[in-house]
Amino acid sequence: MAETTQRAEILCVGTELLLGDIVNTNAAFLSRRLAELGIGVYRQVAVGDNPQRLCDALAACLERADIVVMSGGLGPTKDDLTKETVAKFFGRPMRLHQESLETIRDYFKKTGRVMTQNNEKQAVMPEGAIVFPNRYGTAPALAIENESKTVIMLPGPPVELMPLFDEEVVPYLEKKCDAAIVSRNVHFFGIGESALAEKMDKLLTESENPSVAPYCQSGEVRLRVTARSDDKESAAAMCDECVKRIIESEVGCFVYGIDTDTIENALVMKLHESGLTLSAAESCTGGLIAKRITDIPGCSDVFFGGCVTYTNEVKQRLLGVKGETLDRYTAISAEVAMEMARGVRERTGSDIGISATGIAGPGGGTEEAPVGTVYLGISTEEGESFRRLSLSSNRSREFIRTVSATNAYDMVLKYIASK
Amino acid sequence: MAETTQRAEILCVGTELLLGDIVNTNAAFLSRRLAELGIGVYRQVAVGDNPQRLCDALAACLERADIVVMSGGLGPTKDDLTKETVAKFFGRPMRLHQESLETIRDYFKKTGRVMTQNNEKQAVMPEGAIVFPNRYGTAPALAIENESKTVIMLPGPPVELMPLFDEEVVPYLEKKCDAAIVSRNVHFFGIGESALAEKMDKLLTESENPSVAPYCQSGEVRLRVTARSDDKESAAAMCDECVKRIIESEVGCFVYGIDTDTIENALVMKLHESGLTLSAAESCTGGLIAKRITDIPGCSDVFFGGCVTYTNEVKQRLLGVKGETLDRYTAISAEVAMEMARGVRERTGSDIGISATGIAGPGGGTEEAPVGTVYLGISTEEGESFRRLSLSSNRSREFIRTVSATNAYDMVLKYIASK
Repeated sequence: MAETTQRAEILCVGTELLLGDIVNTNAAFLSRRLAELGIGVYRQVAVGDNPQRLCDALAACLERADIVVMSGGLGPTKDDLTKETVAKFFGRPMRLHQESLETIRDYFKKTGRVMTQNNEKQAVMPEGAIVFPNRYGTAPALAIENESKTVIMLPGPPVELMPLFDEEVVPYLEKKCDAAIVSRNVHFFGIGESALAEKMDKLLTESENPSVAPYCQSGEVRLRVTARSDDKESAAAMCDECVKRIIESEVGCFVYGIDTDTIENALVMKLHESGLTLSAAESCTGGLIAKRITDIPGCSDVFFGGCVTYTNEVKQRLLGVKGETLDRYTAISAEVAMEMARGVRERTGSDIGISATGIAGPGGGTEEAPVGTVYLGISTEEGESFRRLSLSSNRSREFIRTVSATNAYDMVLKYIASK
Repeated sequence: MAETTQRAEILCVGTELLLGDIVNTNAAFLSRRLAELGIGVYRQVAVGDNPQRLCDALAACLERADIVVMSGGLGPTKDDLTKETVAKFFGRPMRLHQESLETIRDYFKKTGRVMTQNNEKQAVMPEGAIVFPNRYGTAPALAIENESKTVIMLPGPPVELMPLFDEEVVPYLEKKCDAAIVSRNVHFFGIGESALAEKMDKLLTESENPSVAPYCQSGEVRLRVTARSDDKESAAAMCDECVKRIIESEVGCFVYGIDTDTIENALVMKLHESGLTLSAAESCTGGLIAKRITDIPGCSDVFFGGCVTYTNEVKQRLLGVKGETLDRYTAISAEVAMEMARGVRERTGSDIGISATGIAGPGGGTEEAPVGTVYLGISTEEGESFRRLSLSSNRSREFIRTVSATNAYDMVLKYIASK
């Protein structure tokens, strides 16, 4: 592999970023794309619409990086100063770029809007700039190459920046690169980040290429494996070998998917593969189990729907849970969870019914069932079973509900795997 | 009020930021909060889990700023190096902080999880650090004061960082800045951000203290009013006067709540006040209407639950929608929406039934019902009515589902208001 990996930094311009009025999604998008191109991003910086501070930040970025990708400050107003600042930095005069002016005129004609004088400013470019026409707005993107350094300037609005980068800048950068990066995500459920890190300590510490890093979110953990090589194929092969090592290790039993995005995605995929159908009966999760499944387009072939039964009476009316069961065991019980799962399975006609009943808090806990106590039920033609969760009572309502839903999905995945 | 405005920079740590795996919402949140405190943010920087580059970035931030707020790198794993790097920078030894160790032990005991050796690392602090206990996770936040400079370190996960900052760091900074900050959020539905900005142009442009800023999210808009004064009382009075002006203006009719957080919060409050009960029948929203209502603790007195009916068969089985209606009008129709609303109201025994049926996409659109077509139904003892949405077909599935649910809540709020 060529060891001349290019270093990049991202420099975003806009006072609205520093005021926290907008979240910097551009930085994440650009980082992801640059990583895919094999360009390492070493720093993301955001500064306001202030020419001196912008110039200082640019100088610092260029001292460290080969490529600086900038976003924002290409608009028509007076505080849009990115091009002017970069031109001054490299000692290049500004010139009207005739082609850009025509493209901007065309854009206004097509969108039926009136072009104002200050839009002409958007067609003025530093001498020698490589101009990338913008079909999504009025400000063209541009690049300046100066000795070994490259500065790429993109318009700030994500709806313009993202397609413009993919269509114009990616082909431009691909030529510059001689390395490719491939990543795989290994998704775990049922093991915490610390426990996973301890068991995989050697791999996490020693892995450089591929590198292995843990990420944690609402009771789930994933390991991201990233390999860099000359071409996509060999980088992918390096990744796959590392993923295989993880799957074959002692933590392999906790892996629910590779690059599956979320556990509900893995679930919908497994339901499709197995030809089984699902429905859900929800008390404490209040629709979250169904909501996360129906986030996934195309889930309607395998997910029939279900019931949200937030009161005892509605559990009886919609799901046929017996009053006797509720009286004897209370609503927070394995028995009620299993009757709910059976009820929803029978009433919707699905192969599998899942259910959740518990105390999501912050109020409502008792000595027998403190906040965080959740019973999950599963019903199939083979019968019913349940899982009891005792989550910490100082966890948020959102966390308790999310982890409950995730556990319900895990129960269905385990059932499908056992078939 | 002291006019010695402090300068801050934000320094976020995490290779996952530089890989673009996560969007840096912390930077926006911290910027907003610091602005409210009267502390100007001049730069946001993100670097990876690399001690040398972290140290360089910290040095550069401290050269320019009085306060550096850092997020990330306080976790239990070996690549979490923020505290160690800051300690080394200021030449402070690391010491076990007994109180933090006990808090972390308690946290594990309460959550019923096993504390691993590496969690102890989270209780080791630079000498002289001010420690802010973390009720939302295992890593305490901390501050180091060194001559005129202050470095604040916060855990990376936003669910920990945000409440921890508001509860512990804001009071700490208020003392430092000799100022008190009070904010109010005025929530709107049914008016777009541009229209609101135009009608309130004078207020938005001229307001400095209190400042008024618009925020827009999934079809809702809010104005955040922030006042800064010597003490909480006078800041609150300044806020309240400004809020009153907004409510009494021509856009006042679109306000659904003050500091209600979300429209579903306002809805649950209004249901409580009116003594009315609600249930929901969901097709395209797939549980989201119920999920957002049941996000709110204490909703069970007014929300009975409902059905997620993702297939035509289940609409008939669970809600009693007539096959004839489905055949004649299709599932995406006002008639089916109203039968769903009636069905869920009658079956759960609630006062009000709401429903949603439509095409959330990205697939499934037809000429008559393109992606973004949604019918919302409402049923009460007085009868049924509906609302038709024609959202743009290039909106995301998530947006279409969210706006549909929000409109359903708005229909119920309007019904309650009309009583």
